[in-house]
Amino acid sequence: MRIFVLGGDGFCGWPTALKLAKEGHEVHIMDNLSRRRIDDELKSNSLTNIAPIGERVDSARYKGWDIRYWNIDITNYGYLAKAVNELTPDAIVHFAEQRAAPYSMIGQYERRYTVDNNVTGTHNVLNAIIDHSPHTHLVHLGTMGVYGYSKDFGAIPEGYLNIKVNSTQKDTDILYPTNPGSVYHMTKSLDQLLFQFYNKNWGVKITDLHQGIVWGTQTEETMLDPRLINRFDYDGVYGTVLNRFISQAASGNDLTVYGTGGQKRAFIHIQDTANCVKLAIENPSDGNKVRIFNQVSEVRSVLELAKLISEKYGSNINYVENPRKELPKNDLEVSNEGLKSLGFEPITLNESLIDDVKFIAEKGNVKKENILTSPKW
Amino acid sequence: MRIFVLGGDGFCGWPTALKLAKEGHEVHIMDNLSRRRIDDELKSNSLTNIAPIGERVDSARYKGWDIRYWNIDITNYGYLAKAVNELTPDAIVHFAEQRAAPYSMIGQYERRYTVDNNVTGTHNVLNAIIDHSPHTHLVHLGTMGVYGYSKDFGAIPEGYLNIKVNSTQKDTDILYPTNPGSVYHMTKSLDQLLFQFYNKNWGVKITDLHQGIVWGTQTEETMLDPRLINRFDYDGVYGTVLNRFISQAASGNDLTVYGTGGQKRAFIHIQDTANCVKLAIENPSDGNKVRIFNQVSEVRSVLELAKLISEKYGSNINYVENPRKELPKNDLEVSNEGLKSLGFEPITLNESLIDDVKFIAEKGNVKKENILTSPKW
Repeated sequence: MRIFVLGGDGFCGWPTALKLAKEGHEVHIMDNLSRRRIDDELKSNSLTNIAPIGERVDSARYKGWDIRYWNIDITNYGYLAKAVNELTPDAIVHFAEQRAAPYSMIGQYERRYTVDNNVTGTHNVLNAIIDHSPHTHLVHLGTMGVYGYSKDFGAIPEGYLNIKVNSTQKDTDILYPTNPGSVYHMTKSLDQLLFQFYNKNWGVKITDLHQGIVWGTQTEETMLDPRLINRFDYDGVYGTVLNRFISQAASGNDLTVYGTGGQKRAFIHIQDTANCVKLAIENPSDGNKVRIFNQVSEVRSVLELAKLISEKYGSNINYVENPRKELPKNDLEVSNEGLKSLGFEPITLNESLIDDVKFIAEKGNVKKENILTSPKW
Repeated sequence: MRIFVLGGDGFCGWPTALKLAKEGHEVHIMDNLSRRRIDDELKSNSLTNIAPIGERVDSARYKGWDIRYWNIDITNYGYLAKAVNELTPDAIVHFAEQRAAPYSMIGQYERRYTVDNNVTGTHNVLNAIIDHSPHTHLVHLGTMGVYGYSKDFGAIPEGYLNIKVNSTQKDTDILYPTNPGSVYHMTKSLDQLLFQFYNKNWGVKITDLHQGIVWGTQTEETMLDPRLINRFDYDGVYGTVLNRFISQAASGNDLTVYGTGGQKRAFIHIQDTANCVKLAIENPSDGNKVRIFNQVSEVRSVLELAKLISEKYGSNINYVENPRKELPKNDLEVSNEGLKSLGFEPITLNESLIDDVKFIAEKGNVKKENILTSPKW
């Protein structure tokens, strides 16, 4: 299949692009390299030494994979529409959004950048599809964060909630009422409404993958060559919680837990991100309604994660004030039947954790002052 | 009170700004004059001969009203933030969105303009408030169109729907599940999610007025001087259904009904728009949650409207293919208790219709070819 990977230079996008190329698909990465720019903006860095995009792609092509790179900012409609019109891809995977909740809460510039970039980008993709390539299947990376973390509505279903309207006693499925916890999560709620309408009015085939918190660094493909190495963020803004713990353990520092650590969240390994996107692409949505899958492997509390690592590596746990507005403690149960029905076999935490900590320990250049840099909200 | 009227040069914005100024408020109109530009773009025109904004404001000031004009495009954050920071208004009324459903469905440029303009504008206003004037009450013009037109959920409540979650049997109020019928209506659904989050996280005081279809031209204030006259759109893109009928009757043409005319919709007279916004401003929301009112006077079917006019003026009814994707027929019942509890007394159709048709007949320059210009979707 011919596949566009929007945001294919990023933490999830790059390993996914490699996975798809290795499987024999024709992969076109489109990326404006914004994530590299934001590293400079935040005086932060990937702990791994990632190669320039040109070198990345050359190395992958040297393996015989059909992959290329286009420097396209999808908020610029002209370039995107031209590419979709000329190449009419079978699928577009859309990772090209500002994806850090803490970044989206720093200040007015970051709030506005996140909304403008994410909404305009997603909307442009939908427009390019309906005008130039209506058969294209859009696979979008959403987030578990659109659901909020309440158990009032029971186990979290895949996108739609079954309700009874009290005034009419009508039973119906509705899009799960969103309760985002940051401007970033809010933009994924906005995306959902764009998808609902473009699917309803133009029949666009869409799969929205509500992903859990990603951890890990390397995948089978990124390990094949040092120039294919994936990025690893450990700072308070872009580092996801488990990766921050891994880098703290690997560098002999305390694990910093926000609040009580009672927050339960859904997690997924980066290898599984790539595997799941592949499954979604190779089994397209029929377009009757927006297909929503929860892309998660398992549910854990933040404190459980900290203890898991603490027990294995002897790190101390240090409780710090939670910079986020969120419940100190919540219960959580999540369905992931959709992807499992397509063959998804989750990698769980215990299996791979040791390798990841070892790998990161060898990198050894954690800037301690970067770990506690989350803005407060 | 010091009040910003964003979009204060438009069809609803201008009479509202005058009303507020006449009531003794300090009114600051901010408008990029986009509506006048779009008239040129569409080769269309207001049937009334509206004065340039400077002349409008001068005439209003000549009456002793405290009103002024700022040429500000609210998608440019710097200018907006500076104004909010320096003037810290008590209320901001936000009309500054592309507001025609047909326009938003013409093509990719119009779809993208509508989303980018409306989302960025609304989000900028929220950012300016939280950063520079947290006490400001935001009054936003939403639309009945966010609800869709199904009676499955019973009479349409004011923004929130009472449901039972089937898996947990929990009873709760949720934001009414949106079912927009155009890209324009979709942007108002997006606005709602912005409001929910900015209210939840920063406590912004917000009233969202879900307005029905506006009809009429003049208000008590716009009638006071020819230079204060309001715009009147009758074309297939910006003209609302009843105003199209009025202009057809007034110019001796057939009334063109889309489909069967069985579509029931909620209507409101332009004078009531101004009155309701005044009520919302003078009785601010407390900020505990987003306050949503349905700003409507009465429910009628499109065919009922056509018959009402046909009987009075002898016009023929001409059924044409419906350019829109919508149910051919629907039932509708709408609560408007919120505004009524603040003192709203609706003007109903029979009372004012004669005056409006007479007034428009005197203008006499309807371009017949402009009436059937709606894009298909």
